Amino acid sequence: MTGFVSFVGSGPGDPDLLTVKALDRIKRADAILYDDLSAGPILDHARPGADLVGVGKRAGRASPKQDHVSRLLVDYAKAGGRIVRLKSGDGGTFGRLEEELVALKAAAIAYEVIPGVASGVAAAAAAGIPLTRRLTGRRVQFITGHDVRGTLPEDMNLSALADRDAITVVYMGQRTFPALVALLTAHGLPADTPALLAEGVSTPAETLTRTTVSALAERLAQGVSDAPAVILYGPLADL
Amino acid sequence: MTGFVSFVGSGPGDPDLLTVKALDRIKRADAILYDDLSAGPILDHARPGADLVGVGKRAGRASPKQDHVSRLLVDYAKAGGRIVRLKSGDGGTFGRLEEELVALKAAAIAYEVIPGVASGVAAAAAAGIPLTRRLTGRRVQFITGHDVRGTLPEDMNLSALADRDAITVVYMGQRTFPALVALLTAHGLPADTPALLAEGVSTPAETLTRTTVSALAERLAQGVSDAPAVILYGPLADL
Repeated sequence: MTGFVSFVGSGPGDPDLLTVKALDRIKRADAILYDDLSAGPILDHARPGADLVGVGKRAGRASPKQDHVSRLLVDYAKAGGRIVRLKSGDGGTFGRLEEELVALKAAAIAYEVIPGVASGVAAAAAAGIPLTRRLTGRRVQFITGHDVRGTLPEDMNLSALADRDAITVVYMGQRTFPALVALLTAHGLPADTPALLAEGVSTPAETLTRTTVSALAERLAQGVSDAPAVILYGPLADL
Repeated sequence: MTGFVSFVGSGPGDPDLLTVKALDRIKRADAILYDDLSAGPILDHARPGADLVGVGKRAGRASPKQDHVSRLLVDYAKAGGRIVRLKSGDGGTFGRLEEELVALKAAAIAYEVIPGVASGVAAAAAAGIPLTRRLTGRRVQFITGHDVRGTLPEDMNLSALADRDAITVVYMGQRTFPALVALLTAHGLPADTPALLAEGVSTPAETLTRTTVSALAERLAQGVSDAPAVILYGPLADL
């Protein structure tokens, strides 16, 4: 009997930010394949005897080959049982979900996708900053700070990203933020545009730093932490 | 004793898509001020005797004055106890959160913001569509289809919105979608760009329609439903 795969968004890290449905799937799983970012106390909810398999993605480090993760997932599902593929935040948002869905489809394995609290959404809430505003900030965009080569994507839409009326959330963008800010300010974004660096959101290590894009670029040029982090910039409310 | 306000994102409608923390706050609340969109079975979790106060926002209808909602919230909080302000999806994403935070700050009332599964995130998951992709779709943006006047915002960034490499999620955009698509196609977006209309996501009335931006614009020009809906368009994966 082929198994069934639940793609589960874990939220930002606090087990209390799991959805009720996600928690149910984790508790009943025979095997859980998890990214490092979604691990920790969330896995305490797994039943005794469940296989807990780290697939090792980590902020700022080389990822294992995605092909390898997809193959492992297919192999577990073929062995039967309830498989949870746990992804940090929302699995469909910068979670490489498509590659794994394609692999399961090709192997004719059934699955469901359970959405989660996206990391950028959680970061904004932790800082008490609405992601959208009524008069400015009526557009919010999520981007990644590095492409498949690990560097700043070359084909970014700078008109979209330097728009001072939009709020932008940057995933995996600490290392490339100085280069991004150089492009944005050259494209007209004011250097004193408000920014927020949100590290370890909803975990005991949570750190929220309110600053500006230029000051944050200077700081990150000196070095970055290994903590999972998102960066927000734009017309952030100051409450 | 002044009360404490928890802003709670309810997720798209299915009570199982509440977070564990949201469910806890709902169960312990002395009063719950809710938008129509976040009501239904979620309120069954309220304790007997809790005040359940609909503040009447509804897709496609005139909203009650935001000032009135903010004043009501302050009045409840001043009366003491645990107050939940329940907002559909994620409260910080097109939820008019800022106005209510400002009102509470002015009244020196303490609060917390609990993020939720955003409606657009839930719509993508329901359709099995990743919100981001590895090679295209590395930018996802959330916009509103109407501004404070109830019409299409005039100052939209069309370069951002007509970008064929981005996935766009439109909130409250059914009525204005034909006008939006006319602008987008004039700005270079192909008429056959994939689109998804997601109505009543995660509820028994869920309807997911895969189509194109031009076909969806034609359909919505004939009339729109009252169901809460989001529209996705862009390089949507077809799995």
